[in-house]
Amino acid sequence: MAELKFDRWRLPFEEALHAHNLASLQPSGLYEPIDYFMNLGGKRLRPVVCLAAAEQCGAPLNQAMGAALAIEWFHNFSLVHDDIMDKAPLRRGQPTLHERNGLAAGVLCGDRMLVQAYMFLSKSPESALPNLLNRFNQTAAEVCDGQQMDMDFEQRSRVSPKEYIEMIRLKTAVLLGFALEAGALCAGWSTQQAEPLYRFGEQLGIAFQIKDDWLDAFGDAKQTGKQAGGDVLARKKTWLWIQAQQQAGERLAEFDALADAERVKRSLDLFRELDLPARSMELALHHKKNALDSLAGLPQGTGKTQFFQEFASYLLGREH
Amino acid sequence: MAELKFDRWRLPFEEALHAHNLASLQPSGLYEPIDYFMNLGGKRLRPVVCLAAAEQCGAPLNQAMGAALAIEWFHNFSLVHDDIMDKAPLRRGQPTLHERNGLAAGVLCGDRMLVQAYMFLSKSPESALPNLLNRFNQTAAEVCDGQQMDMDFEQRSRVSPKEYIEMIRLKTAVLLGFALEAGALCAGWSTQQAEPLYRFGEQLGIAFQIKDDWLDAFGDAKQTGKQAGGDVLARKKTWLWIQAQQQAGERLAEFDALADAERVKRSLDLFRELDLPARSMELALHHKKNALDSLAGLPQGTGKTQFFQEFASYLLGREH
Repeated sequence: MAELKFDRWRLPFEEALHAHNLASLQPSGLYEPIDYFMNLGGKRLRPVVCLAAAEQCGAPLNQAMGAALAIEWFHNFSLVHDDIMDKAPLRRGQPTLHERNGLAAGVLCGDRMLVQAYMFLSKSPESALPNLLNRFNQTAAEVCDGQQMDMDFEQRSRVSPKEYIEMIRLKTAVLLGFALEAGALCAGWSTQQAEPLYRFGEQLGIAFQIKDDWLDAFGDAKQTGKQAGGDVLARKKTWLWIQAQQQAGERLAEFDALADAERVKRSLDLFRELDLPARSMELALHHKKNALDSLAGLPQGTGKTQFFQEFASYLLGREH
Repeated sequence: MAELKFDRWRLPFEEALHAHNLASLQPSGLYEPIDYFMNLGGKRLRPVVCLAAAEQCGAPLNQAMGAALAIEWFHNFSLVHDDIMDKAPLRRGQPTLHERNGLAAGVLCGDRMLVQAYMFLSKSPESALPNLLNRFNQTAAEVCDGQQMDMDFEQRSRVSPKEYIEMIRLKTAVLLGFALEAGALCAGWSTQQAEPLYRFGEQLGIAFQIKDDWLDAFGDAKQTGKQAGGDVLARKKTWLWIQAQQQAGERLAEFDALADAERVKRSLDLFRELDLPARSMELALHHKKNALDSLAGLPQGTGKTQFFQEFASYLLGREH
């Protein structure tokens, strides 16, 4: 299984994550909820590719452990605060931090987690630190921009597909790009040398999000573990919905007043009628191809690109 | 006037603050509220002493401008999120950010402001960056700890005066300490050399907070611009209240059921009866003396300490 292959990086990362937890710190009102949230699990995709990228770029994986921890802590900080903004009660089937410990804890724990991310980042090789800090700051700011755009879109009657792609690029894809770039920077590469890896992660992140939207609408509920059409049910403005609104807005609007089950069914039927399953898959493939094409820009030729190709297949499925 | 003296650093700082505002960035839903908040004003005490410290340590003030901006942005980030946690409607007489733009904006704008602080910090001289980043991270984590302790205290029936001092040390004093230390680090000093300046700011910050509590209870309302006894009215656990509870808890508890005006009057009378005005002033002076004593540890002898002595007098008043 492809997943097992990534254990080579996932297991040392999980070990470091637990070795550097904050569970014993005081005041416990701050650190206990943080520990709760950090133990909700997750695939640890970003730190895994950060460590793997460092190795592919010629460094021992430990050289990128600080950056990998920083990226995972940053990701979790953003989840804690996003859950407040989205009023989400559950995360990975468990109560969100603010739901469990209150709004004030949600705000403050998130802040402390962001600071902790910078603490881990500062453990990186000193020669790489200025570049890492600049790129991490830039990425963090873009993630905030993406979250704001996402919230803005909820209030707007019309959003273009292009705007949607830019939103998911900022909100989720740039962090995957930075994860790969950071591994290379920790291995002593320049930002210019690392740029193809950043682009690879960014484009793969966009492809992944589009595929994720596709799966939500058309995937096998047994495989995804989610209710088919959950995004439509929650009236989320995914690429599918935005595209349908652009092409057949009046018909889509008619479904608005229907009962939930009927509204989901009719919307998904409309998506199919507009050929959106195939077209969204094409769009995902386009960004996957961008990702793979960017690998040609790597300084050390094609010998080292196998891992990245395998990672792309793992993330998006081999069939695509 | 002493205040005018500080214009030497305040004016260039204000200029840099405005030159590096984020008002023109998109999405405006994120950056407009940030700009609103950053323009609410304030005395800019922390960046002023950061720049002044850099000069006292032998560097042009511009060498510390990145750190000074980082400290002011961090301070404002903490105000935005504290206002959410404290449910505060007003800040400097104007609506707080979350009151004006909603909870989600309050959370996200604060996050973006914290990231901006790190962006400015990264503009510091590269040789000083590792130390600056470590010390800034440590300070930021301590400010979170202090805020959590403050919230914990609100829920507890008993808090010791010692615990209170530790809380204000973390919540407010360490940032003043870091402001002075950062100026020295930007001037090329080692953390060991800069330590006396950190201690000076930290101890002065504690003295300032105790004096602030004193002013709230016993100060001239015309001079402070605040209602006398405002902290008692809001049932804040200041040093005065905590000390009174420790010495005369039963009598203090009896006031609980009284109407506000009577409760405030009786509480202040009890504080006076227990000699707390003089004793809290003594405590402030003790920490001011700690601050001034720490200057003896500066590497370059006593020639450069005049500025710091004047700053202490400015902050706490010459009479003390």
